[in-house]
Amino acid sequence: MGTNQIRIHEVGLRDGLQMEARVVPTESKIRWATALAASGVEILQLGSFVHPERVPQMADTDSLVRRFRAGSPTGRPVLSGLVLNQKGLDRALETGVDLVCMGVSASETHSLKNTRMTGDQALELTLAMGRRAMEANRRVQVSIQSAFGCGYEGSVAEERVIRIAERYLSAGLTDISLADTAGHADPRGVRSLFRAIRRLSPEIEPACHFHDTYGLGLANCVAAWEEGVGGFEASFGGLGGCPFTAVAGGNVCTEDLAHLFGRMGLAVGLDLSGLIALSREASEFFGRDLPGSIYKTGPIRWPPDGSAVGD
Amino acid sequence: MGTNQIRIHEVGLRDGLQMEARVVPTESKIRWATALAASGVEILQLGSFVHPERVPQMADTDSLVRRFRAGSPTGRPVLSGLVLNQKGLDRALETGVDLVCMGVSASETHSLKNTRMTGDQALELTLAMGRRAMEANRRVQVSIQSAFGCGYEGSVAEERVIRIAERYLSAGLTDISLADTAGHADPRGVRSLFRAIRRLSPEIEPACHFHDTYGLGLANCVAAWEEGVGGFEASFGGLGGCPFTAVAGGNVCTEDLAHLFGRMGLAVGLDLSGLIALSREASEFFGRDLPGSIYKTGPIRWPPDGSAVGD
Repeated sequence: MGTNQIRIHEVGLRDGLQMEARVVPTESKIRWATALAASGVEILQLGSFVHPERVPQMADTDSLVRRFRAGSPTGRPVLSGLVLNQKGLDRALETGVDLVCMGVSASETHSLKNTRMTGDQALELTLAMGRRAMEANRRVQVSIQSAFGCGYEGSVAEERVIRIAERYLSAGLTDISLADTAGHADPRGVRSLFRAIRRLSPEIEPACHFHDTYGLGLANCVAAWEEGVGGFEASFGGLGGCPFTAVAGGNVCTEDLAHLFGRMGLAVGLDLSGLIALSREASEFFGRDLPGSIYKTGPIRWPPDGSAVGD
Repeated sequence: MGTNQIRIHEVGLRDGLQMEARVVPTESKIRWATALAASGVEILQLGSFVHPERVPQMADTDSLVRRFRAGSPTGRPVLSGLVLNQKGLDRALETGVDLVCMGVSASETHSLKNTRMTGDQALELTLAMGRRAMEANRRVQVSIQSAFGCGYEGSVAEERVIRIAERYLSAGLTDISLADTAGHADPRGVRSLFRAIRRLSPEIEPACHFHDTYGLGLANCVAAWEEGVGGFEASFGGLGGCPFTAVAGGNVCTEDLAHLFGRMGLAVGLDLSGLIALSREASEFFGRDLPGSIYKTGPIRWPPDGSAVGD
């Protein structure tokens, strides 16, 4: 049960920031990215290659990747970026990002609303982009959004997700992430879907991307891990919620997840204190509590810092 | 894997309130208890029979049980109360509480600090009280606190917990709850310990009591459920944290847990809307956000209330 090969893919600088009204200056992003790299994350997502007017938070992604790459030439961490179309892929390939991330939604309504393409159109585009990125000698991660349910459609049939994964595999795209866009996943559904996905091919390298909208994020990560999933996308501080709604939870919180896996005896290799300091800084920057837990409490340690012990 | 017989033991009126500075008036407690009963919780803990000067929040436990019992004669929900000593047990037996809860700590330091008794002394007392309560035809639940780790001692050996459970079983006490007093449990440890405990006897009825101090509460509940645990102690709103420290998380939140199990397809039989309304009221009463999630977001439903759908 469970793999010891845990790969943390830090997506806070992309999925965590894209909904924030206050734009993080490039210099701060460089500093935050440096701290994230120093904390030991294996993959670091620096942004998305979208139109700068559509998502002002991501307007500096190209320069960010170039500058960070220049200052960290070792290829550790792996630098990733999200692309939504061929033009974004052009930009991604020009910057020298290591891992190109792209994906489609398993929900037709979500696909149409988010991309103005049907699921089939989005899939053909993604397969074409994936082939192009591989030809350019980049690693590619393909995701399936709304894999565990959809905020518009409700439940999403496993067959839809499996059909997309099969197409990915046929194209040689084996690094597949299932994303719980709406935070609807539950541990039973997570187990069932990853079991089915892993059965498709021994080549598959499954990853997961959970949102903690309803508090289920960590429980879903444990379920995924127990089904052999090794890749976990997460945001420092749990950034990624929508600050304008009652929904506080964003992405699964990186340091909370690393802390949990560490408690389970797994070697995650992350420096929690660095992540905690960064989440505290981000909390101050945005002027609000972030959803993460241990940046507030600190990790479990003894003796405790005088806090009461209840029952 | 997992049982469909889930019993929610609502402990918010006891474990949730005992750390709060602001005392909840008896009339409010009656109203809250009525709402909890109406929401369908199987067991409702009304308080602890401790010295009123030691825990002013619990000073009205006797009258609360009597009054609530008088107004709800059906025995549904089962009414429980916590006792710490023979004098408390006297009071509990006089009130007509259905289920008497008591326990010892698996951590010697925690036992000494919390009860001024060694673990062995506390165990002998608990066994004697348990026999007396059974002779008085009460149901008895015995707990093992700090079963998954201790805020003073750090890790706690499984053997210590098992030895206590064996003594409980020898005395005919089969309703055994493992409590994660300090919030240190992780899903792997939870599975391991409950597997060992369930192996002791087919008569055992295991329950769990997790604190969400470090955000691990729901993940631990899922792990316990997967190991056949049917009893879950939880607090509405996630009450039970210490409001004076950075540690926000209290008990596992009842409505979040019921929502999670409901998403997993399990029949929990709780009215989420009633619990959510109650947690909102408690949040207003205490003038702060409580740790629970879905009393803020509402349960998962479609169509969404206009909140953005990310990826």
